[in-house]
Amino acid sequence: MAFRTSAPLKEEIAERINWLGLIGRTENDGVTRLLYSESWMEAQSAIKKKMEEMGLSARFDDVGNVFGRVEGTEERDRVILTGSHIDTVVDGGKYDGAFGVLAAMIAVSRLQQEYGAPKKTIETVALCEEEGSRFHLAFWGSGSITGRYQLSDASKVTDGQDVTLEDAMHQLGFGQGAYPLARREDIACFLETHIEQGQILEHEHLAWAPVSHIVGMKRMIIRLSGESNHAGTTPMAGRRDALYAASQMISDVVGHAKMQNNGLVATVGQISIQPNVGNVIPGACTFALDVRHHEYDVLHDFCTKELENFRLIAEKEAVALDIKTWLDDAPVKMDPVMTQRHVDLARKAGIPFKKMVSGAGHDSQIFGVYCPTAMMFVPSHDGISHSPKEFTKIEDLATGVRMLMKILHEMAY
Amino acid sequence: MAFRTSAPLKEEIAERINWLGLIGRTENDGVTRLLYSESWMEAQSAIKKKMEEMGLSARFDDVGNVFGRVEGTEERDRVILTGSHIDTVVDGGKYDGAFGVLAAMIAVSRLQQEYGAPKKTIETVALCEEEGSRFHLAFWGSGSITGRYQLSDASKVTDGQDVTLEDAMHQLGFGQGAYPLARREDIACFLETHIEQGQILEHEHLAWAPVSHIVGMKRMIIRLSGESNHAGTTPMAGRRDALYAASQMISDVVGHAKMQNNGLVATVGQISIQPNVGNVIPGACTFALDVRHHEYDVLHDFCTKELENFRLIAEKEAVALDIKTWLDDAPVKMDPVMTQRHVDLARKAGIPFKKMVSGAGHDSQIFGVYCPTAMMFVPSHDGISHSPKEFTKIEDLATGVRMLMKILHEMAY
Repeated sequence: MAFRTSAPLKEEIAERINWLGLIGRTENDGVTRLLYSESWMEAQSAIKKKMEEMGLSARFDDVGNVFGRVEGTEERDRVILTGSHIDTVVDGGKYDGAFGVLAAMIAVSRLQQEYGAPKKTIETVALCEEEGSRFHLAFWGSGSITGRYQLSDASKVTDGQDVTLEDAMHQLGFGQGAYPLARREDIACFLETHIEQGQILEHEHLAWAPVSHIVGMKRMIIRLSGESNHAGTTPMAGRRDALYAASQMISDVVGHAKMQNNGLVATVGQISIQPNVGNVIPGACTFALDVRHHEYDVLHDFCTKELENFRLIAEKEAVALDIKTWLDDAPVKMDPVMTQRHVDLARKAGIPFKKMVSGAGHDSQIFGVYCPTAMMFVPSHDGISHSPKEFTKIEDLATGVRMLMKILHEMAY
Repeated sequence: MAFRTSAPLKEEIAERINWLGLIGRTENDGVTRLLYSESWMEAQSAIKKKMEEMGLSARFDDVGNVFGRVEGTEERDRVILTGSHIDTVVDGGKYDGAFGVLAAMIAVSRLQQEYGAPKKTIETVALCEEEGSRFHLAFWGSGSITGRYQLSDASKVTDGQDVTLEDAMHQLGFGQGAYPLARREDIACFLETHIEQGQILEHEHLAWAPVSHIVGMKRMIIRLSGESNHAGTTPMAGRRDALYAASQMISDVVGHAKMQNNGLVATVGQISIQPNVGNVIPGACTFALDVRHHEYDVLHDFCTKELENFRLIAEKEAVALDIKTWLDDAPVKMDPVMTQRHVDLARKAGIPFKKMVSGAGHDSQIFGVYCPTAMMFVPSHDGISHSPKEFTKIEDLATGVRMLMKILHEMAY
């Protein structure tokens, strides 16, 4: 299959993106589709209908994932699955998740029009949930398919209004056996196209990226207890200043991450101090540390060394230190054979690309520990995501769809 | 006059402290007497009555300061003024301000009982306001006596309920000419006894301190603007992390203050960041800097160097920097001749003492630029002040009163 510029493809993509972006549209021109909300139901129903219009055989599963199937002529009991998620954060953008769903639908329907039925069965999917924006849980869609979650988990999780995931699901008719079980045993592989949510492709004037890994992540809460005291009458030598200790830790951990120069990122995004009064020495400080890398030993060694340094600083400043690691996720490697094929295809097609690590979490990390999985990025303008300002040029979206078509063609025809 | 231990003096001090501490008492066993409140009026009226019972000729002035006068036999047109303030912070202690008022009353009445009328006129004073706890203004009592403030300033200042200082004053009958003007031209000198509000005397097992200076103070608000971004998808190199920049500044300025080892203190007591979400790089950070020293050139040079360092850090981290200095008070030197006499008296009496700098603000800094002024500290247990836990041992309070008696005896008899 040759790589061709196709004006109608761009038009189709633009039309579909804008169509879906109207469902759950906010007054800021953003999109809010929280799991099992009215706008979410409207979107999944519209997706199902659209799949059918596009020649796919569509169905819900029992947690609300929507699949559009093209039966293979030779292999029917194993499925090539491709898509992304339909839910959004509050006031999010039109591309995060949605593009991967629509790209899969467009690619499969175009392949079918052009080449007829594939040898291997392909399903496109609009996963019900990835963002974790309504319930204190993420990846409900991919997690239900792969067995990470059971239906019974739904009774344990609530939203901000104390509605359980189970009740929300039941209200829309899911979770009660009216649809086929979410759990699948027939997935041969998973392919996901997504916006980058970073600035690397745009900065480097690249159009596309096969993803080699989804980073591992450690997230911690650091609590320091010193002593509050009068800012004027307490000599420097006697102080137990929790913010002074914290500032040394933050300055060190971020500075050391910069020096690593190996893709490791460390962020302190949250801080609070007590009593937070200008003329009182802070007696307590709490801050959040988020560290990510695609190799677990690099991530783990960095954190071990930094936490040891935190202990030394705490001792020097006579503040008590409490470290709570509440997230410790290993990196997930995408399937190297699939990824290498995608690299070869991009090179052959003359697409400017680079292999990248995903610094954000995606459904592909759930599938990645369950079946061979490949992920592809298109650029994000200014790296903005989770915002109404999220934007990707139509040329880049078209490249994403064309590459997915090439990949599916090679795999399924 | 010999230094004597006097059991009845301790009893009198304890009785008076507890008596005044009941006026405006809170449920936490603290004291709240905000300027021109009901409890404040009750306290000043009770003080006036008590002064009269103790043989002093008592009166209000037109802003609510209360004076108790003992006429001198030789000098009547110049007054030795001694006392402190009667107001408190919300839920403050029984000693801050109150002890200086009561110590003056007890010392003068005892001197009168023992030695009769002084040669020089002495007045004790319960200043109406020092804390700045109700209105956005401090030192209303001493400032009105010394000319720092005019009555007309009272219309420009409001409390948290938008009541003007003027209205609050009028409600109690002050500020309308019913009492003598607050402004005085006959103050020969001012003497104030106060709790230290720090831990130095207690840590060094000392009982008393003549104060050489009240520190100068610069207070600033530092605002940093960088760029918020995804904590996972933004490489370290491209970040404009406002908290990382701030942490370097805080770590540097506090660390450099420690290294000075010359009594300079620097405190960052307040900080906030935006958006303050664990997985988002902070795009903005605001923090408060409080720097104090008793020599203005030391204070000024330190701040100049540190702000220059802030600029370099901001440039390196590509964050915009805005510095607002909202307080720039020069240090006030207490009268060196008076202070030296007090040192000599303490040495002669065998009192364990050291000359100290006051790191907190006091009425003495207002009098100190207007007339010869001396200030004396007694210890604060654990350095605690502005709290119901404020406490000074009765032995230390008695030493404070005895030293004031010696000083007044030497000056006025």
